[in-house]
Amino acid sequence: MTITDRPVDNGVNVAALLGAREALSAAPEAAQFTWRAACTWRNGTHSHSTVHGFTGLGADQQHRATYEFDVDHPECFASEDNGATPVELVLVGLAGCLTAGVASVAQLRDIQLRSVTATIEGEMSVLGMLGADPDIRNGFDSITVRFAIDADGSREDLEALIAQSQKRSAVFDIVTNPTKVLVELA
Amino acid sequence: MTITDRPVDNGVNVAALLGAREALSAAPEAAQFTWRAACTWRNGTHSHSTVHGFTGLGADQQHRATYEFDVDHPECFASEDNGATPVELVLVGLAGCLTAGVASVAQLRDIQLRSVTATIEGEMSVLGMLGADPDIRNGFDSITVRFAIDADGSREDLEALIAQSQKRSAVFDIVTNPTKVLVELA
Repeated sequence: MTITDRPVDNGVNVAALLGAREALSAAPEAAQFTWRAACTWRNGTHSHSTVHGFTGLGADQQHRATYEFDVDHPECFASEDNGATPVELVLVGLAGCLTAGVASVAQLRDIQLRSVTATIEGEMSVLGMLGADPDIRNGFDSITVRFAIDADGSREDLEALIAQSQKRSAVFDIVTNPTKVLVELA
Repeated sequence: MTITDRPVDNGVNVAALLGAREALSAAPEAAQFTWRAACTWRNGTHSHSTVHGFTGLGADQQHRATYEFDVDHPECFASEDNGATPVELVLVGLAGCLTAGVASVAQLRDIQLRSVTATIEGEMSVLGMLGADPDIRNGFDSITVRFAIDADGSREDLEALIAQSQKRSAVFDIVTNPTKVLVELA
């Protein structure tokens, strides 16, 4: 650990987050968010999605830019590999969510981060997705996220960081607990 | 419905998929896949992830390209909005998975698609994520996917397409059922 006069700065505005928690607790309707994406089929298993607007804080909001995604299956599935697979998108979302949480919790706990990397792996048998075996699920059997963190903190501090990040992570919750999904034809 | 001599072509190689199902049923160890992403923290809630290699069919495989993703929180969360949010990545994955399924099942059922679009929305209260209310979950309360499909098929045919796509979708399974996630410090 290093002792300096420089305040801890992980680039997270903790004062704003604590202020939002207080303000939104008093106005829970403003805490209600709707996140959106729009998807267009291209050909075969290839689709293109955009993310731009969302609703929250009682108003329609917009990202600074429109984020675009090509999603496809790989060539070994007889597809054209025009983008990452749907399940890899979920892994990217989970890694990004937990990493944002690590930075936020570190800021709250006055722990200066120098670097954070994570490798994430999801295991599955594609016999489920292919409809070959009804006892095999379509999704992941399990996911492992391994963090490497260089920071001004003990190993116990860093283990507590990743534990707290899981506890508050939206995507960790989505993956580890069931969510109701309605799919309908317009 | 239109009757033509042209065979249905949604760009999905059904013969290859049926062949894979047969071959992998006979060699289930080759059906075991590991999907991966690598994530690097940039600053604040901003991370950058790459997707390139995966393991399956008994070998290390590579995508045609390295797919890159910036993930961040929006400005109304006091962040810099350098990319889509983690939860939007999950929505993109779910929409892409169900859309690939619609195209594949349509091909199997000899239904020619002309266009498929989907809008997807996920509802949440951010009071969960902010740790303001232990009774509110961090993730989505519910997700709605609405498909618009222009195809050579009746409304019943198209409703059956989206039902079968859900039944075989990896990401639909991941979101609607719990998955074990291990997060560890290297």
